[in-house]
Amino acid sequence: MTGTLTIVGVGPGRPELITPAASRVIAAATDLIGYGPYLDRVATSSPGQVRHASDNRVELDRARHALTLASEGRQVAVVSGGDPGVFAMAAAVFEAVETGPMAWRELDIRVEPGVTAMLAAAAEVGAPLGGDFCAISLSDNLKSWTTIRRRLEAAATADFVIALYNPLSKARPHQLGQAFELLRQLKPPSTVVVMVRAAGSGDVRRIITTLAEVNPDDADMRTLVMIGATATRLIAREGRAPWVYTLRREVEGGA
Amino acid sequence: MTGTLTIVGVGPGRPELITPAASRVIAAATDLIGYGPYLDRVATSSPGQVRHASDNRVELDRARHALTLASEGRQVAVVSGGDPGVFAMAAAVFEAVETGPMAWRELDIRVEPGVTAMLAAAAEVGAPLGGDFCAISLSDNLKSWTTIRRRLEAAATADFVIALYNPLSKARPHQLGQAFELLRQLKPPSTVVVMVRAAGSGDVRRIITTLAEVNPDDADMRTLVMIGATATRLIAREGRAPWVYTLRREVEGGA
Repeated sequence: MTGTLTIVGVGPGRPELITPAASRVIAAATDLIGYGPYLDRVATSSPGQVRHASDNRVELDRARHALTLASEGRQVAVVSGGDPGVFAMAAAVFEAVETGPMAWRELDIRVEPGVTAMLAAAAEVGAPLGGDFCAISLSDNLKSWTTIRRRLEAAATADFVIALYNPLSKARPHQLGQAFELLRQLKPPSTVVVMVRAAGSGDVRRIITTLAEVNPDDADMRTLVMIGATATRLIAREGRAPWVYTLRREVEGGA
Repeated sequence: MTGTLTIVGVGPGRPELITPAASRVIAAATDLIGYGPYLDRVATSSPGQVRHASDNRVELDRARHALTLASEGRQVAVVSGGDPGVFAMAAAVFEAVETGPMAWRELDIRVEPGVTAMLAAAAEVGAPLGGDFCAISLSDNLKSWTTIRRRLEAAATADFVIALYNPLSKARPHQLGQAFELLRQLKPPSTVVVMVRAAGSGDVRRIITTLAEVNPDDADMRTLVMIGATATRLIAREGRAPWVYTLRREVEGGA
């Protein structure tokens, strides 16, 4: 039997947000490869199915391991959180293919999309991504802080809603604070900021605040941060958190 | 019984990409409201379930209709393509709430996320959204072309991967061509451009080309267009279309 490799997104956390397509691929796989907590979200389909759990680093090594198994004829599912194409495993697999043996290019490699964290986070508070938006990873493991700054500046001056992935970690505790400082120079203090922890997991925590008042210490690696555009608004509600949404049309005085 | 309103994303097309959470909400609804082709994707759960099909305009009217039904005690599902929060129905519903009767703010309104078109389109060709990216709707029904130009310029100069939604329509056939012209002044001719029609539908068509050679006439309203960043690459394959992916790290000579 010819080997296959599918990079599968299992969404933000709740099993109900895993697509039937992703579940089908996982059930049919002979080998599951992924970061331990993602593998824990999916059931083993058969006694013969092998689970290769890893930590969340060395993505390229994990990708090469998966490609090696597929080239040996296994049906491999690389299990990724959220959507595999957004700050997740798919790009690592294709990088491994490009830099690996030519035979790997003959493999049947597919990507099964999923619900990425910013969509789940947005749904938890309303519709903050209702206008044009951008997604930026604050991790500087693979790119410079200069590049991150340049993208934040561009996004702020062109009035995109900004979704920040990987806002901080133990190794880089100060970047989210630095990002807020930069954005405060470019956007009004009243700009809406939303932090959603563990969106789509059933154990969600939401903070709805402003750029003037946001505290970066309220975020951790499981937090998705969104900074509103000029057209991002709050709808006040009696005794409950406001809804947040971005008007589809422009507003006067937009940056 | 208290009324509820849930804006539900049914993904890009294939029923296998509808999340179980979305299917559950649709099955439990007394009333389904949405653009006809989206309603056609979901089965009727009971003889008593009412389907309110509409055309794809007058989103605010549709939102007010849904809110009125919910305020009368119905369990309403507003059925949206892709993810409801991305260029779809959720923002229209919250705009209707903000401008409507105060009683609507007491309603139980939720959003069920889905797989948005750019994730499905990216998965069809590899991992082009593997780095920082932005999503821009080219529709100027609700915002000016000046704003769209400004966002395209910012996205190009800061080297985001760019996903274009609503690339053109009968009423505005020239905007995608104008967008490519603008981007040609700011990005290298060899920049990777991908057009995916009907991504995630089982009837997909893919075009992988360059900014120099792309023909806007190859796109229609069902096409998602992606313009690569400096780090977006092709992996050539014998007798098959190349894979497209964006390196997670920066490359020398980046804009």
